[in-house]
Amino acid sequence: MSNQPFGSDMRNKPFGARLRAAMDARGPLCVGIDPHQHLLDSWGLPDTAEGLASFTFGVVDALADRVAVFKPQSAFFERFGSAGIAVLEQATILLREAGALVIIDAKRGDIGTTMGGYAAAYLAEKAPLACDALTVSPYLGFGSLQPAIDEARESGAGLFVLALTSNPEGPQFQSARTADGSTVAGAVLDGLRELNAGTDDLGSFGAVVGATISSTTENLDINGPLLAPGLGAQGGTAESLTQVFGPAVRNVVPSSSREILGAGPTPTALQSAADRANDAYRTVLGY
Amino acid sequence: MSNQPFGSDMRNKPFGARLRAAMDARGPLCVGIDPHQHLLDSWGLPDTAEGLASFTFGVVDALADRVAVFKPQSAFFERFGSAGIAVLEQATILLREAGALVIIDAKRGDIGTTMGGYAAAYLAEKAPLACDALTVSPYLGFGSLQPAIDEARESGAGLFVLALTSNPEGPQFQSARTADGSTVAGAVLDGLRELNAGTDDLGSFGAVVGATISSTTENLDINGPLLAPGLGAQGGTAESLTQVFGPAVRNVVPSSSREILGAGPTPTALQSAADRANDAYRTVLGY
Repeated sequence: MSNQPFGSDMRNKPFGARLRAAMDARGPLCVGIDPHQHLLDSWGLPDTAEGLASFTFGVVDALADRVAVFKPQSAFFERFGSAGIAVLEQATILLREAGALVIIDAKRGDIGTTMGGYAAAYLAEKAPLACDALTVSPYLGFGSLQPAIDEARESGAGLFVLALTSNPEGPQFQSARTADGSTVAGAVLDGLRELNAGTDDLGSFGAVVGATISSTTENLDINGPLLAPGLGAQGGTAESLTQVFGPAVRNVVPSSSREILGAGPTPTALQSAADRANDAYRTVLGY
Repeated sequence: MSNQPFGSDMRNKPFGARLRAAMDARGPLCVGIDPHQHLLDSWGLPDTAEGLASFTFGVVDALADRVAVFKPQSAFFERFGSAGIAVLEQATILLREAGALVIIDAKRGDIGTTMGGYAAAYLAEKAPLACDALTVSPYLGFGSLQPAIDEARESGAGLFVLALTSNPEGPQFQSARTADGSTVAGAVLDGLRELNAGTDDLGSFGAVVGATISSTTENLDINGPLLAPGLGAQGGTAESLTQVFGPAVRNVVPSSSREILGAGPTPTALQSAADRANDAYRTVLGY
């Protein structure tokens, strides 16, 4: 497997370019690191910070040099307080050293200097939790994300903004109509399209779009990556991606968690599950 | 100053009742702990985890036994990774031991088991970051918050859901119209009103409402607390609260940060600033 430095050593290129290069080299699969209690159980690990560390470093050891992108879910690390965050810090460093990209899935959102604080925490190069991209939430308005956009441009990092999710409660607010007639999700996608305008190939400002929405009338062509969680265990399949994403399917970052991690703890079993998923996504996404 | 156990020792009463009792005893002021770089600077502290610790424990030592509610802003602790979160953990424990209530301002939001992970991280009694209430974001739909609502009911904790904020970008989505004709913010307030129905005095499910919105046609009478950040330095005054909140003003939790913390690092100066603010809010809110 290639060990090219798509992550920490390539901060001189924008996130979108690094993401495309990593997916080209290793396949498009993003492995969601979601250490639920039941996953720790199924690996025979205790529901403690030590169990969390064994689980996370088990995933890192098995997959860091063969998967393009990892998406650790912050909630499951925060559950163990500072001890859990120390595991997230260390895992992020190790994954990036092995040439993978790390998207921390934290759905942060705030205003002004506080949004700037989150940007400094995750996107600034020297931060303890520095990663390649962060998921963020636009409830406070698309413009509230500006400090994170500025920091991402400065440091070569990326953002994934919540747009159109596949949970049943999602449409309540995401389909609401803004003053200019677009939906909330549509306005998020419009904002991202503007940020990515003029970028060759793939911009650095992505959207979170549920892989199991049945179809959408929104324009997903934002010239940026579309993070699609919920594949595998949550019901989405590689094949369904074409139906949901249409011509934008080439920019999908397909994220699977339980489908891959449930195969552990044996490293070879994790590797086979990841390789199988990558093969399926390569075919569908045209890699 | 009274050192009654409104915090950790009163988990047998719901958050709303503990909040009212604490505000009755100590005054309604909520001190926002927002350790910006420029605040550390103004206290003569370095922008490091050690500086963060000196600042935070300075605030705790000076104010823990005389202020009813503290609202640490998670972003400024996350900036220092696990070392910062360790400070937040320790400060939260100390504040609650001194009888204060702690609202961690983290604006978390996710779906399903991940939302459950955040609930377990902040609202479950034995969690390292266990606090009295958490701010949450409803971008994924009001119903996406259900796992946190369940955990709060179970443990006697509370939630503050982002509703109507005062930043200029806020109305873009918060004033969008949902399918049933209400605004997004209105639907959030409706959801909270339902959760608090039947509670005597003050429910445990609050809203975040900007203190500097000029006025609103939304119904703020949710029978729950209304967390109003942005007082003092951000332009809101005690007097403006009556205008914005009308008859619901009695349920406002007025949060000031820089107005209080900027008076430090001398403990007596911090105490005077807090007492002055509390006196002003007592008069306006009728305590």
